Formats: sequence, structure tokens, C-alpha cells
Amino acid sequence: MPYEFYEKDLIQFLINTSQSQIDELIEDIHPADILDAIHAYEGDKKLLLQKLPEWVIAAIIDYAEDEEKYEILSIFPEKRQKDIVEEMSSDELVDLLGSIPKEQADDIIVKLDLEEAEEVRELLTYKPDTAGGIMATEFICVQDTMSVGETLKYLQKEAPDAETAYYIYVLGEHDDLKGVVSLRDIVVSNFDVKIGDIMNENVISIPVDMDQEEVGHIFEKYSFLTMPVVNERDEMLGIVTVDDIMAVLSDEHTEDMYRLAGLQEGEKVTGSIGESVKSRLPWLFVNLITAILAAATVSLFEDTISKVVALATFMPIVAGMGGNAGTQTLTLIVRGIALGELTFENAKKVLFKEFGVGISNGFAIGLAVATLGYLWERKPIFGLVIGLAMFLNLIAATTAGFLVPVTLRRFKIDPALASAVFVTTVTDVLGFFFFLGLATLFISYLL
Amino acid sequence: MPYEFYEKDLIQFLINTSQSQIDELIEDIHPADILDAIHAYEGDKKLLLQKLPEWVIAAIIDYAEDEEKYEILSIFPEKRQKDIVEEMSSDELVDLLGSIPKEQADDIIVKLDLEEAEEVRELLTYKPDTAGGIMATEFICVQDTMSVGETLKYLQKEAPDAETAYYIYVLGEHDDLKGVVSLRDIVVSNFDVKIGDIMNENVISIPVDMDQEEVGHIFEKYSFLTMPVVNERDEMLGIVTVDDIMAVLSDEHTEDMYRLAGLQEGEKVTGSIGESVKSRLPWLFVNLITAILAAATVSLFEDTISKVVALATFMPIVAGMGGNAGTQTLTLIVRGIALGELTFENAKKVLFKEFGVGISNGFAIGLAVATLGYLWERKPIFGLVIGLAMFLNLIAATTAGFLVPVTLRRFKIDPALASAVFVTTVTDVLGFFFFLGLATLFISYLL
Repeated sequence: MPYEFYEKDLIQFLINTSQSQIDELIEDIHPADILDAIHAYEGDKKLLLQKLPEWVIAAIIDYAEDEEKYEILSIFPEKRQKDIVEEMSSDELVDLLGSIPKEQADDIIVKLDLEEAEEVRELLTYKPDTAGGIMATEFICVQDTMSVGETLKYLQKEAPDAETAYYIYVLGEHDDLKGVVSLRDIVVSNFDVKIGDIMNENVISIPVDMDQEEVGHIFEKYSFLTMPVVNERDEMLGIVTVDDIMAVLSDEHTEDMYRLAGLQEGEKVTGSIGESVKSRLPWLFVNLITAILAAATVSLFEDTISKVVALATFMPIVAGMGGNAGTQTLTLIVRGIALGELTFENAKKVLFKEFGVGISNGFAIGLAVATLGYLWERKPIFGLVIGLAMFLNLIAATTAGFLVPVTLRRFKIDPALASAVFVTTVTDVLGFFFFLGLATLFISYLL
Repeated sequence: MPYEFYEKDLIQFLINTSQSQIDELIEDIHPADILDAIHAYEGDKKLLLQKLPEWVIAAIIDYAEDEEKYEILSIFPEKRQKDIVEEMSSDELVDLLGSIPKEQADDIIVKLDLEEAEEVRELLTYKPDTAGGIMATEFICVQDTMSVGETLKYLQKEAPDAETAYYIYVLGEHDDLKGVVSLRDIVVSNFDVKIGDIMNENVISIPVDMDQEEVGHIFEKYSFLTMPVVNERDEMLGIVTVDDIMAVLSDEHTEDMYRLAGLQEGEKVTGSIGESVKSRLPWLFVNLITAILAAATVSLFEDTISKVVALATFMPIVAGMGGNAGTQTLTLIVRGIALGELTFENAKKVLFKEFGVGISNGFAIGLAVATLGYLWERKPIFGLVIGLAMFLNLIAATTAGFLVPVTLRRFKIDPALASAVFVTTVTDVLGFFFFLGLATLFISYLL
């Protein structure tokens, strides 16, 4: 089925099909597509939603953006809301509850049965951006003494409620994680084989307080579909699944890019002017302070500029090239930190490399700019001044591009967060200082 | 098992354990960890590798970076190389072959059995960055007339060779894709149920020539673990798995960040100075041209600057703030395009929003800078000139930050690729033009 032509057909199907037929056919339609169809439908969306069975609505709420989750749920009467939330898995519930004010969240928790309410309350105690905050508690576990046949029978009963049934965890007496066995291993084994004989005892697990970005890197490293989450006593608490991890990694990517540019996390392409101003104006004011520092540097040399006004013409080149070279190194380092490629062990080597890159690129660009300056002003010393300033500024740029994010990280600040403004300040202030300072030094040759 | 303490133990295990014990125990150790241990081992890495069974070496090669894949394979004698490549799945082989020169690749293809060689040759005809280029051909398919019991028996024979056994595809007479059934659905069904009765006929498939980034977005949308790849006749050709997609999305994200900053794809934090210079210097030269444009704009107004040298002092503020505001919009738009949030339908609305953001932020920053200019120079008209220039430049910045990437995309150029340089050129040139032009206009009030 070519997925592009799907939306319109689906709207027609939802409108024209009787309740009983929908119940029968809806199982084969992906909830993400139903949500798309509801978004695209220009009539009363409630009419479409009300025709859907509870488990589909629960799935749609899971696929919906944070801000519309509760909106969808709240169109249903109390009784049906209860049925819908009962269809949601623990991590889906936590996502929903995390997206709404506390009173509304409490209203929903009251609708759950006691055991589930208890579980959700406990999940809510974990920080949202840790393994505990994204895990689900619906996993399948067995004992190592069970046979494959017994396990299959157990699965027929339990699998429908589990978040994923592709890995089955083997727990000891105290819920301690002893091993894992894949559904595939079970399917290819004889019925009388014991789980203990086919399980992998070397389970790689995730501590419950691990940052979600780090969890993402572990998934990337091992290509797992699901990983178990444990506490400090190695008791299994839940599972994290790869689809949640893909969302986490995508969000972390967006965050890195946004922070480098001075946008706030929540900003959306489709947001309002007010939201965008709120997201960006603070950063522009921070940048204004650094721009004033650059301006103050220039103002020290107003006397020199008034004598050789061509210096003003070349100022944008010094600042612009320094900023670009700094941004190159900065981006490489921020991404290198995010991917775990920059470590304590190789940091020194990378710093030397960046210094070397600054010298090499500084030499090439310095030479080009010196030639340009000479041709423009017809004074060799003018070429020398701008070329040398460029050379020094490119070294400063690559060095700052390394040192700023690495230092921020050392102080446990996200290296993407404030790096750009620091690096640009360094390249602007130092660039103007080198350029106009050298010009002041050689002023008699420039007149 | 806390994964941090793993490496050293693993090296000791590989060194001290006898061949036969390794064969028995290695199954429970993840190949990604074995690769890490080999990287960390300071002695002769060959000694560790030679102790491993072929299927583990094949898996290690798959987890290795492109440039070391062939290096690992080539330490083994011819005969063993043949055994290793026989253990590799089709997409792993294609990755390996894509990472080495053609003659070496042909050498390896010769080692495959005829059928596999044929399959790999066909896979190599697809572009590497399309669904065809990343798919594997080892999938499990059955007919809809088979029962669950028959399918389970078939799985016991076939599953060990399959890339993933969690989805089983149902094909018609001409290999056309009729449905899909999950291993979970099979496990929870009675043995005599027909596959046709439990399969989902509404399979969402991927066209073989679809760009891998788009494939990534489809995986993100649906949370699938595996998706089938079909040709234009809906014949099933292969599967794409979520672990490959995670790698694709991570690479595409690095590419976006790199391109915005002017780094080339292959550059690594740990690369050499030469590689970095090659990656960055071309971009710096492109930027030099745009910096020269900015300088040329300033040079038009040298006469004005020589009369009011404080203008030179405020130049970095105009250029810097314009650049920052432009980068904010640019980053939002590039990410919005990558995430599919910016569409043809909402583009106009977003442009108006960005224009509005430019007016709002331009007003706020313009007012602040006007005040600053007045306080600095003690001339109201100086404040007016810099404030108005700032206001106009911030509107130009958000507008260019939208128009540049959207236009590039229209011409099918990656919006991240050249956007930054265009946007900065616009903000620099227009910023200086507004500022120095207004100053020239009001020059008699500024003296």
C-alpha cells in the first residue's frame, strides 16, 4: 500500500463504515495513520474519534503530540475515559500524565485500578529524562526452570498485555535479573528444553537513573530492540523499547541543534510569533552583550581607524572568518561529545589537532586575505597586518571552538547550550584586537 | 552486568580461555563488546581475533567502522575468509563491499556461493542511500494457506538464517506482498489456525528507491521494528530493520549539523590535521567570498566612516545580531524540513510568522541598541540610525533564514548545505547597507 494515498481513503472509511465493521477492520490499520487522518479531517473530529474502540484511542493518544494527548482523552465521557486509560501501557500513561497539570493528572490516576495506579505513581517518581522516566513495566518474565512448552503456554496468556513480547526475561527469587531469552530462541527450540539452558546469562541492563541520551547510545551500540532496566540491587523494574529510544535520540538531536543556534527546546516551525519571540529574544540579548564587547574593542582603536578608514572595510572579514572557523570546530566537538567520540583519553590529542588545523587554515586564509589587502590598498604592510591578524584569529578560533564546549562539559553544562556565544565573543574580540592592534603598531607605514 | 567494567574482563577472558571453551561461551557475549575489547587490547589483536568462531568475526565486521571492516577480514587465510563471509547477511556483505576498492570487492564476491553472489551483485546495483541500498534479503516468508503449526515448524528450520524473525511476510504466487504476521501473533494462536486468518493485509511497505532519510521518518512515525521493501510491481525484495535505521538517522543528523557549519561528512573528531583542513578549507574560502561582499559594502561608505568613526565601533553589533537572528530561523527551518514539519501547505504561514518574529525581535533589539547608541554618542539621531538599521536587519535576517533553505530545497539542494553562507551574506550586506546608508543620509546631524 503506497502510504501517500492513505489519508483520504482512511477518512472515507471512518466516516462511511458502520461501528461493527470498524471494530472488525480497524485492527489492521496503524494508529499513526488514524491520527493523521483525524488531523487532516476538516469536519468534526469528535465524530471520527467516537467511532473507534478504546484500545485504538489509547494508541492514538500515545502517538499524539504532548499538547493534544489530554485534549483527545477529554472529549469522552468519564466512563469511557476510564476504559481508555485502562488500555494504555504504563509508559504511555506516564507520558500522558507528564503532559498535563497535576490536578488533571490526579483525576486520571483515580480512574486506574489500584495496582496500576500504584505502578504509575512509582514511575512518576523517576526523572522524565532518565531510563526510569521512559521505561514501561509491562514486560514478560519467567523462571529458568520452566520449559519452552510451558513458556509458550504462558505467553499465549500474557503476551497481549506486554509492551513487547520479543524478549522474555528470566528472573530469580528476588526479581533479580538472571537472563534473557528471545522469542526467536524459544520458537526454534524443542518444547521440553528448559529456559535455563537456552537463556543468555550475560544480560546487558540499564541502571534506572541513567540519562536517556546515554541509554540511546547503548541501544545504538548494541542494536537491541528492548533492554531491561534494573535498580542498584539488580532487580528488574521495567523495559525500554527501541521506538521510545528513536524518539529520545531525535529530540536530543533537535536540542543540540537548537541550543547551538539559540533556540529553546519547545519551539516549533508551526508555533506562534509569541512563542518564537519568547524562545529567541533572551538569546539575542545574551548575544547583544557579547556584541557590545566586540564593539568596545573596536572603540579602543577609533583613533587608528579615523586615520586609516580602510581598516573598517576589512573588519567584517576578520570577524566573519574567525566566526566561521570557530563554528566549524565547535560543531565537530559538540557532535563528537554527543556521539561519545571525544573522551578524556583523546581530548589532548584532539586539542593539538585543532591547534594544527588553526595554523594550517590560518596560513591559507591569511595568505589569501593578505594578498587581497595588498591589492586593495596597494600597501604591502596593510596586507601583512590583515594577513597576520587573520592567521592569529583562526588559531584562536579553532582553539576556542575546542576549549569552550569541553570546559562547559567539565562543569556539567550542556556543551551545546552556551558555546556559540562564547566562541564568537573570542573570535570577535581577539580578531579586532589583533587586526586593529597591529595596525596601530604599524600606523606610520599605513598612512 | 554493569557495562562499564566489561572491557577488561572480556580481554582477560579472550586471552586466557581455551578455544573450545570460547566456542561454548562466546554466544552470550555481544559482538559490539568483543569489538570494543579488541580495540582496547594493546597486544597483538590478531591473537584475539583468531580465537573467535567465524560467525562472531562476521558480526564483529558488521559492527566495525567502514575503514576497518576489510582490515579485520584480511588477517585471515583465504579459506577462513570464505567461511566468514558465508556467515554474513546480504546487507552486511554490501556494507563491507561498499567500504573497499572494486578489485578487493570482486575478490570477496568470488568467495560466495553462486546464489549469494548473485543476490549481492543485485543489491550493489541500488544506490547506497536508498531503501534498496540498506535492505537485507534474508527475510522469512510463508503462504497464507499454511497453518500456525506448519509455520512454527518452518521457522525452526529457517529462523536461524533470517535477519529478523519477528515479522513473517505472507507472499502470493508472484512474490507479491499480501500480508504480514508477527511472531507474537503466531505464538498466541492455536496451531491449526490458518496464517491467512491472522495476517494483517494492510502491510505498509517501502518502495525500493526511497531515500533512506525518508525511510527513517516512516520508521519513526510507525514505531516498526522491520519494514518490507517492494518494487513497483509490489514484489517483496527485502527488509529494512530498525537498527540500520537508527544508524541512518544518526548519520543524517550529523550531516545536517556539519553542513550548517561547513564541515564535510567524513570528518571525525579523531581525524588528522590534513583531513580536517581538506574538510574545512573549501568552506572557509566560500565564506571569504561572502565576507568580501560585506567588506565591499562597507567600502562604499568609507567617506561617511572617516567623518563619524563611531560607526565602525557599532558595525560588529549590526552584523553580529543579524547573523544570530538569521541562524535561529535557519536552524528552525532546516530541522523542520528534516522532521517533515515544514510542508508546502504551511510554508506561507511560517513565512509570515518569521516575518512577524523579525518585526517583534527587531523592535526589542533595535530599541535596546538605539538606547545604547544614544548613551554612547550622546546624539539622539545616532541612536535612531543604529536602532532603525538593527530593526530592518532583524526582519531581513528572519526572512532570509526562511527563504534561503526553502528555495534551496525547491531546487532539490540539501537546505543545510549552503544556507548558512547565504543567510550571513544577506545579514552582513544588508545590515551594513542599512546602517551606513542611514548614517550617510543623516550625516549632517551626526557630525
